[in-house]
Amino acid sequence: MTFKTSIKAPRGSELTCKGWTQEAAMRMLMNNLDPEVAENPDELVVYGGIGKAARNWESYEQIIESLKKLENDETLIVQSGKPVAVFRTHENAPRVLIANSNLVPQWANWDKFYELEERDLMMYGQMTAGSWIYIGAQGILQGTYLSFVEAGKKVFGSADLRGKFILTGGMGGMSGAQPLAGKMAGAVILVVEVERAKIERKIKEGYCDYLVETVDEAIALVNELREKNEPASIGLVGNCADVNRELLNRGIIPDFVTDQTSAHDPINGYVPNGMTLEEAFALRKADPKTYEQKAKETMAEHVRTMLEFQEKGAEVFDYGNNIRAYAQEMGVENAFDFPGFVPAYIRPLFCEGKGPFRWAALSGDPEDIYKTDALAKEMFANDEGLVNWIDMAQKMVKWQGLPARICWLGYGDRHRFALRVNEMVASGELKAPIVFGRDHLDSGSVASPNRETEGMRDGTDAVSDWPLLNALVNTASGASWVSLHHGGGVGMGFSQHAGQVLVADGSELAAEKIKRVLVADPGMGVVRHADAGYDIAIRTAKEKGVQMPMLKD
Amino acid sequence: MTFKTSIKAPRGSELTCKGWTQEAAMRMLMNNLDPEVAENPDELVVYGGIGKAARNWESYEQIIESLKKLENDETLIVQSGKPVAVFRTHENAPRVLIANSNLVPQWANWDKFYELEERDLMMYGQMTAGSWIYIGAQGILQGTYLSFVEAGKKVFGSADLRGKFILTGGMGGMSGAQPLAGKMAGAVILVVEVERAKIERKIKEGYCDYLVETVDEAIALVNELREKNEPASIGLVGNCADVNRELLNRGIIPDFVTDQTSAHDPINGYVPNGMTLEEAFALRKADPKTYEQKAKETMAEHVRTMLEFQEKGAEVFDYGNNIRAYAQEMGVENAFDFPGFVPAYIRPLFCEGKGPFRWAALSGDPEDIYKTDALAKEMFANDEGLVNWIDMAQKMVKWQGLPARICWLGYGDRHRFALRVNEMVASGELKAPIVFGRDHLDSGSVASPNRETEGMRDGTDAVSDWPLLNALVNTASGASWVSLHHGGGVGMGFSQHAGQVLVADGSELAAEKIKRVLVADPGMGVVRHADAGYDIAIRTAKEKGVQMPMLKD
Ligand SMILES: NC(=O)c1ccc[n+]([C@@H]2O[C@H](COP(=O)([O-])OP(=O)(O)OC[C@H]3O[C@@H](n4cnc5c(N)ncnc54)[C@H](O)[C@@H]3O)[C@@H](O)[C@H]2O)c1
Ligand SMILES: NC(=O)c1ccc[n+]([C@@H]2O[C@H](COP(=O)([O-])OP(=O)(O)OC[C@H]3O[C@@H](n4cnc5c(N)ncnc54)[C@H](O)[C@@H]3O)[C@@H](O)[C@H]2O)c1
Repeated sequence: MTFKTSIKAPRGSELTCKGWTQEAAMRMLMNNLDPEVAENPDELVVYGGIGKAARNWESYEQIIESLKKLENDETLIVQSGKPVAVFRTHENAPRVLIANSNLVPQWANWDKFYELEERDLMMYGQMTAGSWIYIGAQGILQGTYLSFVEAGKKVFGSADLRGKFILTGGMGGMSGAQPLAGKMAGAVILVVEVERAKIERKIKEGYCDYLVETVDEAIALVNELREKNEPASIGLVGNCADVNRELLNRGIIPDFVTDQTSAHDPINGYVPNGMTLEEAFALRKADPKTYEQKAKETMAEHVRTMLEFQEKGAEVFDYGNNIRAYAQEMGVENAFDFPGFVPAYIRPLFCEGKGPFRWAALSGDPEDIYKTDALAKEMFANDEGLVNWIDMAQKMVKWQGLPARICWLGYGDRHRFALRVNEMVASGELKAPIVFGRDHLDSGSVASPNRETEGMRDGTDAVSDWPLLNALVNTASGASWVSLHHGGGVGMGFSQHAGQVLVADGSELAAEKIKRVLVADPGMGVVRHADAGYDIAIRTAKEKGVQMPMLKD
Repeated sequence: MTFKTSIKAPRGSELTCKGWTQEAAMRMLMNNLDPEVAENPDELVVYGGIGKAARNWESYEQIIESLKKLENDETLIVQSGKPVAVFRTHENAPRVLIANSNLVPQWANWDKFYELEERDLMMYGQMTAGSWIYIGAQGILQGTYLSFVEAGKKVFGSADLRGKFILTGGMGGMSGAQPLAGKMAGAVILVVEVERAKIERKIKEGYCDYLVETVDEAIALVNELREKNEPASIGLVGNCADVNRELLNRGIIPDFVTDQTSAHDPINGYVPNGMTLEEAFALRKADPKTYEQKAKETMAEHVRTMLEFQEKGAEVFDYGNNIRAYAQEMGVENAFDFPGFVPAYIRPLFCEGKGPFRWAALSGDPEDIYKTDALAKEMFANDEGLVNWIDMAQKMVKWQGLPARICWLGYGDRHRFALRVNEMVASGELKAPIVFGRDHLDSGSVASPNRETEGMRDGTDAVSDWPLLNALVNTASGASWVSLHHGGGVGMGFSQHAGQVLVADGSELAAEKIKRVLVADPGMGVVRHADAGYDIAIRTAKEKGVQMPMLKD
């Protein structure tokens, strides 16, 4: 059962549930499926291939129903997008506990998943889709921007990428942040996307400047813009494997090459070459096994082009879609010769508990976010990058669904900031409560050896005790809802990760929860990296007084 | 660093920590390593192959230290047996959160585990070893007894196995419950065990009656005892694969055949045939890869004998050590032709939220347990099996470490019973607080497709959302400590499971927690089975008012 729908979360300060925590969960679930936010709301798909917010429409309706009835000392249990139980807990406990797409390791693969999914027994939660804190393309924008900036610093010693050329793939839910992020960093960015409509959408949303149809046009435009030192983004309709090969054939070597097509899912994500898009979609339906094979073959070609770009001097990195693993499976033995973006650029931030922290205004009023922007600029005035980010975001980011802001804050700053916001809710300065959340791709909430935990210093890439402990400690600390997922980002079998969201409704209780949750949550990130031996994390733990019983002096 | 040790938990009503919850965690951790309880305390090994209570001695000491200092609103985080952090939470939160042996699925195998374990980066927690609620052989005794009784009912229509013959293997930590359980059920039980000292230990503990050295002696003794209709247990020193084959050669077909050798671990558990025990142990150290190969080959032989017994009319079942999977890997294609004990006998109990519930007396005084025994017999006087069990346990079970009782209570009964016990603590009728816990092998706390969730009605054997949700809801409800493990029972890659322990210290707060935790914990079992379509579970949910938003009327 699926039907066309047009969901919009209620706005304003009036409660439809019995408390703001339940209300927030309800609004954020609805917001995830808002057509302004979701990639394919009719199928309950939020982003990232088939990342869903609820298992099916009946489950969606029953979740909403349950949240409306839920008391302030009850907890709703959601299993792979289906509301399965309600238990009595207490007011310091989460109102919703979620587990999505988890499979016992020996069976943790796409085949088993799809077998269960087809029988409506499971759902793919991706990261923030099934945990109700996706906020549209902005959610990934700052992280993508940061990665480009850090890459620039590494290669050219400068955060300013003016005149530089970035080549990448994918303009979907998250990958659609790339054109804007590249432009924000100052570069000319060319994004290859197989579906024309995706580029058109990003142009409409203000995330992309130009659409071109041919490699010739693309090259001409790139050259023109680079000469003018003009930051800009271009979408090229095409398949990455083909376009990259053509660029190589013509001897065109970009400064940076990466890729964010949905390679994590070789059946319902990545599109093979050698056929039209219509043929590909038809094959996907008719013969998923053959489709999968062809998709993986194209990934192998695609990764080979990336390796060649690297050989010829480009800075090449994997952008978190697990394309290297599939290419390796298909015989590209040296697929892992180029690094992932986390070990290459992001890990030092994780060591300070930094990661894609975000908040959304339940009022629906952009003014509320502008006020929090001003607060952030005031509190973190010394952090030039942060101030710049907020200025740029205000200028360039269009609202999608409930107004929201992403801002990579770290240990110590998250709770201090949220406490001030909570006061602003209490005083009426903000029109309604604010929800604080984050991606599962955070400092201490994920184990994913081909992405967030690639190449850990002590070799503990695959140890997934950490995300499980993260979910447990967030639950113990009183987050509003907590989730444990499997397979996000890199696909089934390759990751385990946790999410949490916390509502600041201006109450004393919310302040208490903020002081616990927004300390322990990034705290687990500092601890995880300090335990692995990273100096920055060890220093952060010591300076900020994170209690680690076995940390040597 | 390992050293000889002789740990004993403090007894009595005096606190060494800042609260009874911390005190209980400390005493139960110590109790797990009490030489009366643990299989190999010098190596921190509690039971089940290499199931440990802490990663190493330094970690053990720091856990104890941390628990002694821990405030009543703090939570200690333990990662694979190492205390990694302390965060401020609140009094309704667990005092300890534990994750053991969890690996991202693609890397979730023994090779990766041992690679990390050798570098002291990981620990195997089994089920109750790493979650500090192992209570010695009794812990598994009632479950083993119940399985034999249910098997008897199924084959002979009678719970009384007098004159019947059970053949099995293994007399270690848990498997050592078999001889006594078989005898309790009335049968003559022959247990093949490769290590003579293990049988001697069980004889000393009163769990086994006879030790024999040869198959001839064994057969003679079995026949004699069966003729006399005398319930008895016999340990035979030998390798199962060899002994089973010899019995088949002689045409001896027992009524029941099963096995509980430590087949879940082909390197540090199961012993291959064709060499002496000393040779095997030397090979294990010198060349683990060859050892593993030989162990798996022996398992294949072993399973083949079980299949032959089945063909010749014996009731054959797998007893939860994953031996079928390894045999299948080694080419025994029909290894799964005999069922596991859960689908065969135990699942109907799970549907009512029943499972290996247990409690221990922190006073150290057996009188406290006798008083709880009396209470159970009074409260559940209508349940003949339960009353019999307690009578038998009082007669036959020797105390190991802190006095404890196992009793398979279900949804509704667990919290009612615990509330009464809490009152007895409050009134001083019991000398010190009681801890309530359970095995991870419980109604709603485990996903293990070759064991607890084998052959689920809706095909969701491999879905591990359930144990994760179980841990989250126990954390949200205020259990004293909560754990999430991987690989227990059946080995790396094959299971995920959760544990919880709750202290009844006589306080009002403890009563509140009992009403939440001991409802939600078995409640998740009822929900998991009702969601899978089991009639008994659906009926239980409806009759007892478990809230399931999507359960149809
Ligand atoms: N920071 C990170 O680690 C990070 C951030 C964002 C996304 N990702 C990963 O990037 C991937 C994409 O995420 P998403 O939300 O954008 O998914 P999505 O499915 O919404 O978008 C992917 C896009 O790639 C296009 N595409 C597929 N195959 C292609 C091909 N061969 N050539 C050109 N275009 C092709 C699709 O048409 C689609 O528009 C995922 O694997 C995700 O995990 C990682
Ligand atoms: N209800 C259940 O599902 C359940 C209950 C208890 C144990 N188990 C499983 O049973 C296994 C044993 O658990 P344990 O705690 O007793 O482990 P353990 O290691 O303490 O004991 C196993 C015993 O088997 C013996 N053994 C090994 N290979 C042998 C062989 N080839 N022939 C004869 N004896 C051999 C060992 O010497 C050892 O004494 C585990 O896999 C455990 O998960 C399952």
